[in-house]
Amino acid sequence: MKKLLFIVLFCLLCAPILNAQDLLVKAKERFKPIPANPPTLENNRITKEKIELGKMLYFDPRLSKSALISCNTCHNVSLAGSDLQPTGTGHAWQQGTRNDITTFNAVFNTSQFWDGRAKTLAEQAKGPLFNPVEMANNEERVLKTLNSIPEYVNMFKKSFPGDKNPVNIDNLAKAIEAFEATLITPDSKFDRFLKGDSNALNAVEKAGLQAFMDNGCDACHKGINIGGETLEKFGVVEMPSSEIMNNDFGRYNVTKNDDDKYVFKTPTLRNVALTAPYFHSGKVYSLADAVKIMAKVQVGVELSPKDTDSIVAFLKTLTGVQPEITLPILPPSTDETPQPDLSK
Amino acid sequence: MKKLLFIVLFCLLCAPILNAQDLLVKAKERFKPIPANPPTLENNRITKEKIELGKMLYFDPRLSKSALISCNTCHNVSLAGSDLQPTGTGHAWQQGTRNDITTFNAVFNTSQFWDGRAKTLAEQAKGPLFNPVEMANNEERVLKTLNSIPEYVNMFKKSFPGDKNPVNIDNLAKAIEAFEATLITPDSKFDRFLKGDSNALNAVEKAGLQAFMDNGCDACHKGINIGGETLEKFGVVEMPSSEIMNNDFGRYNVTKNDDDKYVFKTPTLRNVALTAPYFHSGKVYSLADAVKIMAKVQVGVELSPKDTDSIVAFLKTLTGVQPEITLPILPPSTDETPQPDLSK
Repeated sequence: MKKLLFIVLFCLLCAPILNAQDLLVKAKERFKPIPANPPTLENNRITKEKIELGKMLYFDPRLSKSALISCNTCHNVSLAGSDLQPTGTGHAWQQGTRNDITTFNAVFNTSQFWDGRAKTLAEQAKGPLFNPVEMANNEERVLKTLNSIPEYVNMFKKSFPGDKNPVNIDNLAKAIEAFEATLITPDSKFDRFLKGDSNALNAVEKAGLQAFMDNGCDACHKGINIGGETLEKFGVVEMPSSEIMNNDFGRYNVTKNDDDKYVFKTPTLRNVALTAPYFHSGKVYSLADAVKIMAKVQVGVELSPKDTDSIVAFLKTLTGVQPEITLPILPPSTDETPQPDLSK
Repeated sequence: MKKLLFIVLFCLLCAPILNAQDLLVKAKERFKPIPANPPTLENNRITKEKIELGKMLYFDPRLSKSALISCNTCHNVSLAGSDLQPTGTGHAWQQGTRNDITTFNAVFNTSQFWDGRAKTLAEQAKGPLFNPVEMANNEERVLKTLNSIPEYVNMFKKSFPGDKNPVNIDNLAKAIEAFEATLITPDSKFDRFLKGDSNALNAVEKAGLQAFMDNGCDACHKGINIGGETLEKFGVVEMPSSEIMNNDFGRYNVTKNDDDKYVFKTPTLRNVALTAPYFHSGKVYSLADAVKIMAKVQVGVELSPKDTDSIVAFLKTLTGVQPEITLPILPPSTDETPQPDLSK
């Protein structure tokens, strides 16, 4: 009898520890921590020179027709690599159709843009540059700008030492990609948990992680970026409101394949607490609301307030150490540099 | 005879040295180097906390109605504290009427704005915030925004420890002023010359300084900022072109005093090689053109190409060490934070 009581007591005491261990084992199967250093890039060796050039380009508004909009305008390093707008605001105050995705940890996504139409960050970088509702520039004008500034010509030469004509759009995109690859946010509470520190998450956060997995959120939100790997239908169980859908067919617009209707890239949940508003349309500002909507439309679950709160608490543990960026000092224009053009 | 030859030779050899000494003595009478540290401010003790808060506010687009425009949009630290536009572009892509003045070294100006209507940087900071063609915000909304973000409330408390209600517009302006006071650019070539290093300027630059003073440019462009001290009529000898004047009566618009027609603050020439385009209207992109126009309309001199070039060479020695600014990580909005409003 005494022996039995002892065993029961032992089990009761150890259950939370065993559960935590079990949770960690399961989590490790689904998620990976952010590495301390940027990964290697395909066809783009990361060098100090390239990162420095890419940083200058990322912050240089002269890449836009107006000389007013830089990559950082919409992918603001002070705001977790995104902005605060529902959808991007670009040249001549035009509104884009989709929410600006964070550049932070984007290097770990298997594709870029909400519809996954770019494979790499280098490919992505060319999009906004030439989009008439974003930076509204053209190739000739960008090259004229870069070639008019001796410091840039010099830095392209140093960054691409093998190239005969280093100042070109592909190299510009590669330099930006190299810089963006450094915009990673390691060492979140969740990363510390994944690396074995079971105290890195508190009880509510652990309950949130458990609820996140129990409800199957990790079917798509998985891997290093807890998302960013797959393209999925938005509205598996029921369609989200028309306000949230915003008349957007998603990947269908790229492929014209009916199966791709309402298909979007699963966004990363890294730093999600810093990147409101949410969804491709940026219509939802509250993270709790976004969680409830996702549970309802993707897995058909009406989340309890308790589960919603714990999942939100868990999502907040995905906020990593933000990159410390010293602003580049941009080289001055010359008499040959194209002047700002604000016209539509 | 031998003795006389020796004296003549001695004089010929020493003349440049004596001239250089003479130039330095004269220059020291007219100009002062940028100090290594920010000056003290009237009614605003600079503290570490205030600078940090001011830096966050300077970079936070939530101070604007659109949540898209920050102080740094027009006073870009990567672009010598200014932008590349003829006149500022603000809320809803509206065009301002005057060129955006650099915030760098602005703390040494005796007044702020082109018409000198603000005495201090704190007073200046409130201007763009509430100007409908700039950040287009209002006091109530700014305070609602700041009060909705606990990190800001906390930082205002720490920065203004004596205040009962530290979150207010005056304190916001004081914090921005404290940060801006750190945006100084010491140790230019000219500063090193002023401090006694006569080799800091080469022969052409010295000739430029000489021509600058010989032509009386230093009557207004003097002191620490080589400008920024006085309000002067633009067009003393003859009126600049109507394109350059841009229908702007300058200080007259503030005082309605006929004597103030076409009166503007003498702009600083510090970092002038980095802050094109020039004049209150921002109509001139070439520094050489700006120099020629100034000589013509202010002192009635048609500068020779040689003098123009040497003065430009001298002006380039006014480029100081640019401040190294690490971007702040801005605290996230909450459900109470006013959402971006892009409407006009």
